[in-house]
Amino acid sequence: MEDNLFEGTESLVTPAYVRVARAARRSRTAQFRQLLTQRRLPRQGLDQHTIRLLLDELSGLDANQFLGQANVGEREGRLYSELVRVRHFGMAHGMGRAGDLAASQPKACGASLLVRLCTALLLDALHLAGFASCRHVALLPVATGMAITLCLLALRQQRPSADRVLWIRIDQKACLKCICAAGYLIEVLENKIVGDQVVTDVEALKRRLEESDPSRYAAVISTTSCFAPRAPDQVVSVAQQCQRYGVPHLVNHAYGVQSRRCNGLVCAASRLGRVDAVIFSFDKNFMVPVGGAGVAAATPILIDALQVLYPGRASVAPVVDLFITLLQLGREGFTALLNEREERFVQFKERLAPILEKHGERLLHTPENPISFAVSLRDTMVRFGVEPSAIGSMLYARRCSGPRAVLGTERRQVQGVVLAGYGAHIADYPTPYLNLAAAIGIQAHDITRFCRRLDHVLETVRRRQTSLVSAVAAH
Amino acid sequence: MEDNLFEGTESLVTPAYVRVARAARRSRTAQFRQLLTQRRLPRQGLDQHTIRLLLDELSGLDANQFLGQANVGEREGRLYSELVRVRHFGMAHGMGRAGDLAASQPKACGASLLVRLCTALLLDALHLAGFASCRHVALLPVATGMAITLCLLALRQQRPSADRVLWIRIDQKACLKCICAAGYLIEVLENKIVGDQVVTDVEALKRRLEESDPSRYAAVISTTSCFAPRAPDQVVSVAQQCQRYGVPHLVNHAYGVQSRRCNGLVCAASRLGRVDAVIFSFDKNFMVPVGGAGVAAATPILIDALQVLYPGRASVAPVVDLFITLLQLGREGFTALLNEREERFVQFKERLAPILEKHGERLLHTPENPISFAVSLRDTMVRFGVEPSAIGSMLYARRCSGPRAVLGTERRQVQGVVLAGYGAHIADYPTPYLNLAAAIGIQAHDITRFCRRLDHVLETVRRRQTSLVSAVAAH
Amino acid sequence: MEDNLFEGTESLVTPAYVRVARAARRSRTAQFRQLLTQRRLPRQGLDQHTIRLLLDELSGLDANQFLGQANVGEREGRLYSELVRVRHFGMAHGMGRAGDLAASQPKACGASLLVRLCTALLLDALHLAGFASCRHVALLPVATGMAITLCLLALRQQRPSADRVLWIRIDQKACLKCICAAGYLIEVLENKIVGDQVVTDVEALKRRLEESDPSRYAAVISTTSCFAPRAPDQVVSVAQQCQRYGVPHLVNHAYGVQSRRCNGLVCAASRLGRVDAVIFSFDKNFMVPVGGAGVAAATPILIDALQVLYPGRASVAPVVDLFITLLQLGREGFTALLNEREERFVQFKERLAPILEKHGERLLHTPENPISFAVSLRDTMVRFGVEPSAIGSMLYARRCSGPRAVLGTERRQVQGVVLAGYGAHIADYPTPYLNLAAAIGIQAHDITRFCRRLDHVLETVRRRQTSLVSAVAAH
Amino acid sequence: MEDNLFEGTESLVTPAYVRVARAARRSRTAQFRQLLTQRRLPRQGLDQHTIRLLLDELSGLDANQFLGQANVGEREGRLYSELVRVRHFGMAHGMGRAGDLAASQPKACGASLLVRLCTALLLDALHLAGFASCRHVALLPVATGMAITLCLLALRQQRPSADRVLWIRIDQKACLKCICAAGYLIEVLENKIVGDQVVTDVEALKRRLEESDPSRYAAVISTTSCFAPRAPDQVVSVAQQCQRYGVPHLVNHAYGVQSRRCNGLVCAASRLGRVDAVIFSFDKNFMVPVGGAGVAAATPILIDALQVLYPGRASVAPVVDLFITLLQLGREGFTALLNEREERFVQFKERLAPILEKHGERLLHTPENPISFAVSLRDTMVRFGVEPSAIGSMLYARRCSGPRAVLGTERRQVQGVVLAGYGAHIADYPTPYLNLAAAIGIQAHDITRFCRRLDHVLETVRRRQTSLVSAVAAH
Repeated sequence: MEDNLFEGTESLVTPAYVRVARAARRSRTAQFRQLLTQRRLPRQGLDQHTIRLLLDELSGLDANQFLGQANVGEREGRLYSELVRVRHFGMAHGMGRAGDLAASQPKACGASLLVRLCTALLLDALHLAGFASCRHVALLPVATGMAITLCLLALRQQRPSADRVLWIRIDQKACLKCICAAGYLIEVLENKIVGDQVVTDVEALKRRLEESDPSRYAAVISTTSCFAPRAPDQVVSVAQQCQRYGVPHLVNHAYGVQSRRCNGLVCAASRLGRVDAVIFSFDKNFMVPVGGAGVAAATPILIDALQVLYPGRASVAPVVDLFITLLQLGREGFTALLNEREERFVQFKERLAPILEKHGERLLHTPENPISFAVSLRDTMVRFGVEPSAIGSMLYARRCSGPRAVLGTERRQVQGVVLAGYGAHIADYPTPYLNLAAAIGIQAHDITRFCRRLDHVLETVRRRQTSLVSAVAAH
Repeated sequence: MEDNLFEGTESLVTPAYVRVARAARRSRTAQFRQLLTQRRLPRQGLDQHTIRLLLDELSGLDANQFLGQANVGEREGRLYSELVRVRHFGMAHGMGRAGDLAASQPKACGASLLVRLCTALLLDALHLAGFASCRHVALLPVATGMAITLCLLALRQQRPSADRVLWIRIDQKACLKCICAAGYLIEVLENKIVGDQVVTDVEALKRRLEESDPSRYAAVISTTSCFAPRAPDQVVSVAQQCQRYGVPHLVNHAYGVQSRRCNGLVCAASRLGRVDAVIFSFDKNFMVPVGGAGVAAATPILIDALQVLYPGRASVAPVVDLFITLLQLGREGFTALLNEREERFVQFKERLAPILEKHGERLLHTPENPISFAVSLRDTMVRFGVEPSAIGSMLYARRCSGPRAVLGTERRQVQGVVLAGYGAHIADYPTPYLNLAAAIGIQAHDITRFCRRLDHVLETVRRRQTSLVSAVAAH
Repeated sequence: MEDNLFEGTESLVTPAYVRVARAARRSRTAQFRQLLTQRRLPRQGLDQHTIRLLLDELSGLDANQFLGQANVGEREGRLYSELVRVRHFGMAHGMGRAGDLAASQPKACGASLLVRLCTALLLDALHLAGFASCRHVALLPVATGMAITLCLLALRQQRPSADRVLWIRIDQKACLKCICAAGYLIEVLENKIVGDQVVTDVEALKRRLEESDPSRYAAVISTTSCFAPRAPDQVVSVAQQCQRYGVPHLVNHAYGVQSRRCNGLVCAASRLGRVDAVIFSFDKNFMVPVGGAGVAAATPILIDALQVLYPGRASVAPVVDLFITLLQLGREGFTALLNEREERFVQFKERLAPILEKHGERLLHTPENPISFAVSLRDTMVRFGVEPSAIGSMLYARRCSGPRAVLGTERRQVQGVVLAGYGAHIADYPTPYLNLAAAIGIQAHDITRFCRRLDHVLETVRRRQTSLVSAVAAH
Repeated sequence: MEDNLFEGTESLVTPAYVRVARAARRSRTAQFRQLLTQRRLPRQGLDQHTIRLLLDELSGLDANQFLGQANVGEREGRLYSELVRVRHFGMAHGMGRAGDLAASQPKACGASLLVRLCTALLLDALHLAGFASCRHVALLPVATGMAITLCLLALRQQRPSADRVLWIRIDQKACLKCICAAGYLIEVLENKIVGDQVVTDVEALKRRLEESDPSRYAAVISTTSCFAPRAPDQVVSVAQQCQRYGVPHLVNHAYGVQSRRCNGLVCAASRLGRVDAVIFSFDKNFMVPVGGAGVAAATPILIDALQVLYPGRASVAPVVDLFITLLQLGREGFTALLNEREERFVQFKERLAPILEKHGERLLHTPENPISFAVSLRDTMVRFGVEPSAIGSMLYARRCSGPRAVLGTERRQVQGVVLAGYGAHIADYPTPYLNLAAAIGIQAHDITRFCRRLDHVLETVRRRQTSLVSAVAAH
């Protein structure tokens, strides 16, 4: 609504009140104007009322919401259910066009505008979190795995003769599947152990690139965010090798945006070597539902190729979620979340240490992993004969979600690749363990409850085994 | 809540009232039970209250909604914004797992259940609409174009030596892009003209398959729903040839589900020939926002391959939209929509005919296309010198969305393929035209408004030209 | 938001799309402008999106939604729960001030505006429904009973010596209570029977006013909407007597607004006699939740007195509900509802007649009651010994809500008044009956289901009794 | 839904996941069961998802939400607008019946249950806040002023010969109007000054009751929550006098529930003297929208009378708001709010003190008022000639809401009563002042912003006056 609309209202309501209210209204308009012109995160997060107003304004620019519209095409954004309409604020046309995922839509001016604004806000958030070198970002309405697949499909057109991807081992199924889905062979680069940590074997990478024909590789994929005791890859070194041998480099930065340290890594790698794209999850970094991923880069080459490659339209829902959340966070809110996570990460380990000691276990020493850490389950297995998976099941049944129990001796074939010590990112990791994370949004009660329940579970299995042993001894 | 919970309430509220209310509650539970056990569309659509209850119940089964949960992983479905939470009913984990898009999720029992139920309801809706041969359907959280790309990626693993797709020409950019995105070459099979219609050149198809090595083709792609004067492909014949030559056959059934006639076609083709998968849009057929597509088939082979191929999780939002809409429609509601569309298709043409006649134009005779039709703009161009695109722009500015103006003489290169007469699906279509559709959900006022505005636009351009001519003559 | 805000967006989205979208936006603004300046029901109802936009705009004018507000008073419209905030669109200050229920609020410019607009829309709706003489209306956030009490309290200040109300008998408890609550004695004017109908005994009214001191009466209360076989009061005659004797006249028009005939009555009465106020329900006439009532009149005297009398603020929720509903209805929607109700009223009786005949019962002949009608239960009671209340209970248990079973021989003391034949509005009504209504919003399925169930219930009791009699006879 | 409903789902979703989800579901059911049986505030507040589930369950017990219902009455809870339905969770029948505001409704089992539960929760909250003597509470869907009117109307039936109310002066218009609306004369009991405070003149009260006929008084009305420098009334002494003279005693506890100190007062008064009812606001104490009030007492006499007096049904919306808010607060949340308010009250005064000193003003010393305080504006007026109202207006225009500027020399007639020094609760209060409050929910930024703006306003008026004086002097 226009401000002048309210001129007439002074005959209905005391003019002095209207004056103050209109002034307040102009403050809100000024807020919107700032957003539309500066396209940066607001300092303070917006309240829900303001965000709703903005969404309703934007969706009002979409043709399916126009008054007096005549719809005579085959895709007109008609919505049958009011429940569905409300949850999407009336936006029905998704994002993108046949030509380009980032293109404006003739029938969805509002949604198109939203996508542009969200792109700018996300870029600002990435800078705020320390990914300063980022200049371009694509918003993809698919999760991280599929986003990597799309990057690989886009690379195919640049490197038609490549048939494989050089994959620095990380034992998550989706990381292998996203390569196969794109139709590439997987070539594994194994890691090495240093102390408790599993780290990139940079020397092996060098040798591999030197010894083989680099043009066979569509890309090298490295990872910043991973389960301890694996450390983030040495992406700077990897980037340097990729630059040297002219091989594209994709960084799987899945939940790395939440860590300023991980962002620092990709930032340095972009500056000092070759990084074609950094792929990260919306849900894992910005606390939105699963469904979207960002692809960031210092240059627009792969970003543009990606958006042109994408065939047709896509759901705009993940972008709307991100847009709402970024506006609600603001610079201060996002910074607070980042800080809080770091503090809780430290607290979590401090709270666990004495409990572990009591049960003869310990925190593995993984100083380079800023999000995930692991606790040994050696004593539990060796002295009490309890497998890590049993501990995992007991925790799951006690409403602990997230811990991953790793034995480290399993051999598994995934997508045609045989991996020894599956789950541990390396063969022969010396100790079974339980993996934990202090991810963005973790609450104090998550830590408290988990510590109490882990203590109880370890207590229980030990007592049970001990009594079993006593029982056997008694015979 | 359990029914027995209300036993205690009889001390708070008159017992007779509680009794009747509990009986009514049991009717609703019976409705849910029927849904969970029979997994078919309810006869009558459910009201919004009931649907909300069901969604809240389901989302309550997801771990991020549990009471007393301890979240210590890296992806815990945390939602920052309450606005986002509400619009997703608290569901945050998306759908699928690393292993399989159709797999149950340990942290999202409710969403997993919803996906299963929705799959069953969709299958029922397809049967109701005449796609009786369908036995399996995958729900993909991507739109039609990307869904075809995924099908092609899944086919690559079955036919590693294939490098191209045989594409029966349909002039929509996304249809070409979805092939390129998957990394295949496009081989065009041109159409032919019969009367006003553009139809499949079955003979040419036969020749092509006979003359070339069928193993080079990853698939033949045919289309059932298209803009008139193109007719739906003769998918039965295509399917028979595919069977004969052992080539996979994908049917682009984008908005064909809304037409019982189009469904009849794919159904017959599945019975009489080879159809590997039928890809259709959620938004175009079920009036939900852009974002989801279904892949249906009589056998599970490609369906399963697709779901296993998909790397990682995906947004569940498009499935939730479909679920809500199917429940709200019920069998009666969906049937009513299908009937209504057919009636409006006839009405639309009847209403336009006299207007066209008045302006010296006519409906093109396209009896095989049950959704789209076209009106000539020959006189407008030849006598008055007005290009179709000018008519299109004037209609767009008058809030008519959907009409596509086609000149038919344009030559364009799309994704490396040169297409003569781009937009008309064939070179040298004899007349310029305007394309229109009566798609599902079309309202009487869409027709009324459009007819009035087209009449007005044609009137305007003619008068303008006539006065110009008079002006010239006067000199 | 201001329209010029979108000027900058043309650098983000294709300018042609922005142009059309801004034009569409201006249409919506024009709609709002018309509403704010003309203050009449829109011809066609507004869609939910538009209504939400308007509500959000209005609530944005309330101080508790201002950006940068400093709240240092004792009542600042703070809302703890986001769930509560959302359902009230952020409006927290209610309506009215200490001084006047209709006064603008300094902290709630938006809500104040909403109340004014709603008053104007309601007036328009009343005119549309045939209450043409209405010039003033107060929106009260209390239901009909309490609204009548408030009218009586307002009358007290005009007539300090009055101690009683002359009440034309209508057997609904709230109608008696609203008089007592105001601290008045009830003086009953009994009705008389004409044919099947219970009608106003106008002669008795004349005598009563003639014989007693009119200044003792705070008011005469008549009723237009009532349960058949009672007919609406002869309000014109009553109004004429009130005028003659100088006694205030309140018309209980509870659910009469939905009937153009009832509105015609109050309209004529206002023109031809004395009507101080016409009280009607929001929920019963406009399909909103219970909670609001309107007080209408041709002159502002009592209306103003009422608003000044009301001590303090009140919930604005019932007004918001009415506002939303009136906007959503529009003139066409409201007219359609009124027409539909009249048609269903006729259908309902037509559908019941043969069923009743089958069971030896009949429709009572009550031609003056346009909303309610009654069916005899004489045969059921006399021949089969089944009391009306048993029929009522059986229907209630079968999810029929609304039917009232009346025996007509009960004697009850209500609020100190003894009423013979309680429930029938008169002593000695000759037949027991069941009372039904075709009220606004009644659906075809309500009629179908009810007819089926009544048939079944009558069948059941007869069969049961017959078999009992046979059993007795067999002995 | 019943838990056993999910048994069948194990064929759809991995049984282990269903097991854990069902266990979590049972925890939620247990939470509901506890609520329904113990009827106390939960320790921790419930999340919005749980509250929505509960509301949807309850509203599902109302007849207008039943499946297969046949509605043939005149009030069937039909809702036209889906927007309205959603905001009321489908509850349409309001609360109460003709017979009793607290009675169960045959068509609204769910809403009836909600009202009962809310009553119990409110009682628990009152106890928690220190009003330990409270045993009965009525939930009224009207604000405080009207609630007092209703109490007086209920008292009329107990004391038919009373014609006046003894009102301990408190200068708020609604406090006078609520007496007049009930039809009583107002007899003023003036206050006295002690130090900076305006306090109850208990001696004068004694004399008045002794000298006049107590049966003439319907009630004495005292007040606990008021604007400083008025102190809360000495309700214990008032209660003792009321007991001694047999006069009913109503305590206007409008926003007193938020202060444990004020609650302590009414609690002691109930124990040591006569308190018939304590009336308090929902919105001012529990951060819900304006619209509801509670009437609490140690005995049920007046409470019951009130509920029986109320004629007809009423909106249930204010009770729903309270219900949601109490559940969301829980014991911990409510206690935290109470504590926070107390802390902010202290902080606010500490923050203001130096600013006032700078401008030659001071905090008035009002140690007995725990919510409100006042700052002098004497210097501002005397030395700079600026009236308090000018300061008030400047603050209002700067988005400070709540401050009340009092001159103290105004003489006003309100509802027929002449009050000298209107606004100051007493004639001849020695200093003009500005009144402020730290009410429940006050935020740190309210204090910060207000202090800054007051400083700025005082600065501005002084500078302006000084320059004016200089200008004059210069001439």
